[in-house]
Amino acid sequence: MKKNKQVILKKRSNLEILESNFEVVDAEIPPINVGEFLIRAHYLSVDPYMRGRIDEEKSYAEKVEIGEVMVGTVVGMVVESSHDKFLVGDFVEARTGWQLYGICNGSGIRKLKNDGVPLTANLGTVGMPGVTAWIGLNVHAQPIKGETVVVSAASGAVGSVVGQLSKLKGCRVIGIAGGHTKCDYVVNELGFDACLNYKDKDFQKNLRDTCNEGVDVYFDNVGGIILDSILNYMNPFSRIVLCGQISGYSDPSALTVHNFRSFLINRIQLKGFICSDHMDLWRLALSELGDLVKSGQLKYKESIAIGLDSAPKALIGLMEGKNFGKQLVKLL
Amino acid sequence: MKKNKQVILKKRSNLEILESNFEVVDAEIPPINVGEFLIRAHYLSVDPYMRGRIDEEKSYAEKVEIGEVMVGTVVGMVVESSHDKFLVGDFVEARTGWQLYGICNGSGIRKLKNDGVPLTANLGTVGMPGVTAWIGLNVHAQPIKGETVVVSAASGAVGSVVGQLSKLKGCRVIGIAGGHTKCDYVVNELGFDACLNYKDKDFQKNLRDTCNEGVDVYFDNVGGIILDSILNYMNPFSRIVLCGQISGYSDPSALTVHNFRSFLINRIQLKGFICSDHMDLWRLALSELGDLVKSGQLKYKESIAIGLDSAPKALIGLMEGKNFGKQLVKLL
Repeated sequence: MKKNKQVILKKRSNLEILESNFEVVDAEIPPINVGEFLIRAHYLSVDPYMRGRIDEEKSYAEKVEIGEVMVGTVVGMVVESSHDKFLVGDFVEARTGWQLYGICNGSGIRKLKNDGVPLTANLGTVGMPGVTAWIGLNVHAQPIKGETVVVSAASGAVGSVVGQLSKLKGCRVIGIAGGHTKCDYVVNELGFDACLNYKDKDFQKNLRDTCNEGVDVYFDNVGGIILDSILNYMNPFSRIVLCGQISGYSDPSALTVHNFRSFLINRIQLKGFICSDHMDLWRLALSELGDLVKSGQLKYKESIAIGLDSAPKALIGLMEGKNFGKQLVKLL
Repeated sequence: MKKNKQVILKKRSNLEILESNFEVVDAEIPPINVGEFLIRAHYLSVDPYMRGRIDEEKSYAEKVEIGEVMVGTVVGMVVESSHDKFLVGDFVEARTGWQLYGICNGSGIRKLKNDGVPLTANLGTVGMPGVTAWIGLNVHAQPIKGETVVVSAASGAVGSVVGQLSKLKGCRVIGIAGGHTKCDYVVNELGFDACLNYKDKDFQKNLRDTCNEGVDVYFDNVGGIILDSILNYMNPFSRIVLCGQISGYSDPSALTVHNFRSFLINRIQLKGFICSDHMDLWRLALSELGDLVKSGQLKYKESIAIGLDSAPKALIGLMEGKNFGKQLVKLL
C-alpha cells in the first residue's frame, strides 16, 4: 500500500525562512479517475522562485496558501494510469510539488524521451533553469561574438548555462560566484574566461580590473550591490537581463541601485523577464539544450539532498548560496 | 560692420551652475571661405543636455572645453554665403552655439521650409525635443490605444509632445509637473487626462489615486524619487523610457532607485536613449510633427528670454524648473 508524504506551508515569511515555516505530513493517495495518472516523484527541483511563493509581498506568481503542498517541479515515473497518452513506466516532468506522489490529468506534463539526457538534467540544464538562461540570452540579451558577458550566480543552474551558451557564441564570459571553489569550477570546468568571488574583500578592485574594457551584457541573477557595481562598467547600448534578485528576498532594501545615471548615459536596456512568459520557445530551447548536454558541450553540477524531509533545508541553503550547482532533492 | 558676441564656458561644475560659470565676450567675425556661409542667429534653444556638457563627469556627449563657446542649436538666417545650397535669406537650424553669428559649411544644417511651421517651433516641438518625444514613444515605449502613459516634466518641450502624441494614439495620459499653473495648462490646454503637481504635499497620495489601475508607459524626464514612486504602479510588461534625469545633475545620489524589485516582478523594460542615436528617423519624425503643429493638433508654450546675456540665467532656470514650456533666448 503506497503512502504519500508531503511538505506543506505552515507559515509565511518576509524575512529569512526557517524549517519551521514548513511541515512534513503523511497523506493518503486518492484513487485516480479516468483520464488521470499517478506519478511517483524521483527528484524534486529546488529553485529560487519558491521563495517568492512563501513571501507575503506581491510576486510574479501565485502564492502557496497555508496548509497547501509547496509548489515545485519533479521528475518521476507514471506508476498507475487511466490516461491514454501517459502509460505506466513513462518518465515525466510534472509540477506535482513537494510530495512523493501526485495525480495528474496530463495538462502541463512533459513526457521525457529516453534519448540520453540524464533524468535529473530535465530539472536543470535541460529544464526550466536552462530554458530561462536560453530565453534571457537569445530573446533579451542577444550577445554577439566578441562581446563581454557577465553573469552572477555563475555556478548555479541558470548562470552556468548562460556562461557556456555565451562561450559557444564566441563571447568573453566573466562569472561572479560565492567562494573560490565555485569560481575555480566555473573557469576550469565550465570554461569561463574569468570568475570573481563576490565574498573576496578585493571584489570591487577585481571587478574593475576584469571589466575595465566594458561589459555588453550583464545577466543578473542576484540584484543589489553587484548590479549596482557592474553599472559602472556597462558599455553604450549594453543590455541587462534581470532574471533573479536573490539578494533581496529577505530585505528588499538590499536591491537599491544608486548608479542609475549609467542607464541614460550608456543607453542601457534593462529587461526583467520570467521564462513562462515565452512558452512558445520552450520546445526549441529544450531541444537545443538537450543536444548540447548529450554532446558534452554543456556541463553542469548538482547538489542532491536526500529525502523529502530535507527539502526545506535545501531551499534555505539555496537562498544562502550553500548549494553548488543545481539543487535537487532525491525522493526515491 | 557686424560684431559677434559669444558666451564661453569659464568654469566647470558638478554642483549647481551659476552665472559665474560663463562669460559673455565680444568677438570678431572672420571672413567666410568658399563653401561656407554666415548665419545670424534669431533664437537660441536652451536644453537640459547642456548641463551635462559643463559637468566634470562622463556624459553621453563631448564636453565643452574651458574658453570654448557653449554648444547649442539656433534658428537663424543666412546673411553671407559662398555656398551653392545655402543662400542669403535662407532660414536654417544650426548648431552654432551661444553666439550671435556662426560660420558653417553646410554639414549638419537643416534648411527650414517656409511651410507654416513657426520659426521657433523648429527648436522645440518640430525640432530636437519633439523628435526626442517621437523616438522615445514610437521606438521604445510603443504605447497602444487604451494604455496609460505617464510623463514627467509634462509641460516641457519633450513632455508636452509625449503626452499629446499619446492622446492622439488613444491612450490615457497622466502628466507630472511642478506647480498648479503648469498642471492646469497640461490638462486644459494640452488635453492630458490628469496632471499631478510633484511639489504638492499630497503628491504620493495623488499619484496612488491616479495610477492605481496601473501604468503601461512611463516616459521619464527627471529620474529620482518620481521614477522610484511610479515603479509601484507599473503594470506587467510595461515600459519605462529614460530620456532625462534632470533631478540628478547636481546630486547623482538623488537618482537612487529603491524599488528595483518591480522591474523583475512586472517584467518591465527600461531603455535609456538619446535622440541622436536614431538619426535615420529624424526626417519622418519632423515631417509628422510639422504637420501636427500646422493642423493645430500639437500645441506648445515657450519661455523666451531676451538677449544673449540672459542665456546663462535661462539655463539655470531650466534646471530649476522655472521655465514654462520650451526655453528659448531671443537674439535678434
